Amino acid sequence: MAKVVDVKKSVMEADEVLAEKVRSFCRDRRIVLVNLIGSPGSGKTTLLEATKKYSDIKFAVIEGDVETARDAERINALGVPVVQVNTHGGCHLEANLVNGAIGEMDLEGISLLFVENVGNLVCPVEFDLGEDYKVAVNSVPEGADKPMKYPHLFHKAGAVLLTKTDLLPYLSFDIDVFEKDLEKLNPDVPFLKINSMNGDGIKEWVELLEGWVREKSSR
Amino acid sequence: MAKVVDVKKSVMEADEVLAEKVRSFCRDRRIVLVNLIGSPGSGKTTLLEATKKYSDIKFAVIEGDVETARDAERINALGVPVVQVNTHGGCHLEANLVNGAIGEMDLEGISLLFVENVGNLVCPVEFDLGEDYKVAVNSVPEGADKPMKYPHLFHKAGAVLLTKTDLLPYLSFDIDVFEKDLEKLNPDVPFLKINSMNGDGIKEWVELLEGWVREKSSR
Repeated sequence: MAKVVDVKKSVMEADEVLAEKVRSFCRDRRIVLVNLIGSPGSGKTTLLEATKKYSDIKFAVIEGDVETARDAERINALGVPVVQVNTHGGCHLEANLVNGAIGEMDLEGISLLFVENVGNLVCPVEFDLGEDYKVAVNSVPEGADKPMKYPHLFHKAGAVLLTKTDLLPYLSFDIDVFEKDLEKLNPDVPFLKINSMNGDGIKEWVELLEGWVREKSSR
Repeated sequence: MAKVVDVKKSVMEADEVLAEKVRSFCRDRRIVLVNLIGSPGSGKTTLLEATKKYSDIKFAVIEGDVETARDAERINALGVPVVQVNTHGGCHLEANLVNGAIGEMDLEGISLLFVENVGNLVCPVEFDLGEDYKVAVNSVPEGADKPMKYPHLFHKAGAVLLTKTDLLPYLSFDIDVFEKDLEKLNPDVPFLKINSMNGDGIKEWVELLEGWVREKSSR
């Protein structure tokens, strides 16, 4: 069973102080902290499964969900260190929850820590968790209009992933619209097309992550 | 062009007072108010398009989005009365926005008013808009684990729609898990499977809506 942290047991401190505490922890240990933000069912957990399956990269995960430990159980089954945080109605993670979860983890030898945020394109964007990068995870079935409808996320993202590309033949997804709108919001952001089921695009994703790890370890 | 209401121009009053005002308005005019809640890209607007295409039911729409009037333009193109509400970062609609939008609409001859909430499975659930029913819109690509991961919505829903059923052959969606979890949360809720592209399930959806309209008009 994966560990579960109850929100209400976490000590509440000023959010910005705790974000800085998380940032400082990760700076000292040369851990890259990646905040995955996407809609419910956009494929965030499946992306992490594929990252494990198709690469040698060593990482740990903090799973954020309103309820259930289902995602943490999936990650735990891969032998990846994981803690589940349940918000019990809360629509996003805050730095105090990440700080609390880090305290529960053995991060020896880990250079990359994912936070899988609550499925939501709006609220998680506003909360600094002390992360190095926010990564926007948007799936093909959600439609190509998402960057302009949820511009704050796409503007702030350090990378944008378009997942479930295997469904492109069955949907009227206009990838030109998606790319043009994204370019307006965030011209130089790395944009990767990914099919986590067969590994398409995972190599490029892992290279991006490895670059981030190299950059942080050389600071 | 569809009308756009700016949130910041709306008069802020106590939320519960305004929800009651909306409820009273709809009671007096025998208008059924339906609050559509689903993830970004779950097919809420496409459901409304199909409701118009495959039925004679007369309805109006209040479109809620963080940014853009794209959804209202789609509804406007069908000749359906519509007002777009932009929240500019807000993750849900509140009663003051619905009340303001109603003031902008000609609802003569309308017996059904949809509010399409901001794409989000968490925050919209907590805010009473004065609606008769919350309807949960969940699409097949989001996965079968959504009821238990977002139980508050499914527990409170007056109907649950599973959309994009044309994608079932291409995905490992376990409909038994979905139905069993839903039954635990909300045993008697109407559950409809819908493909808005070819109209599958729309007849049952329209019959449900017509029943709600008949019930309200006979009160």
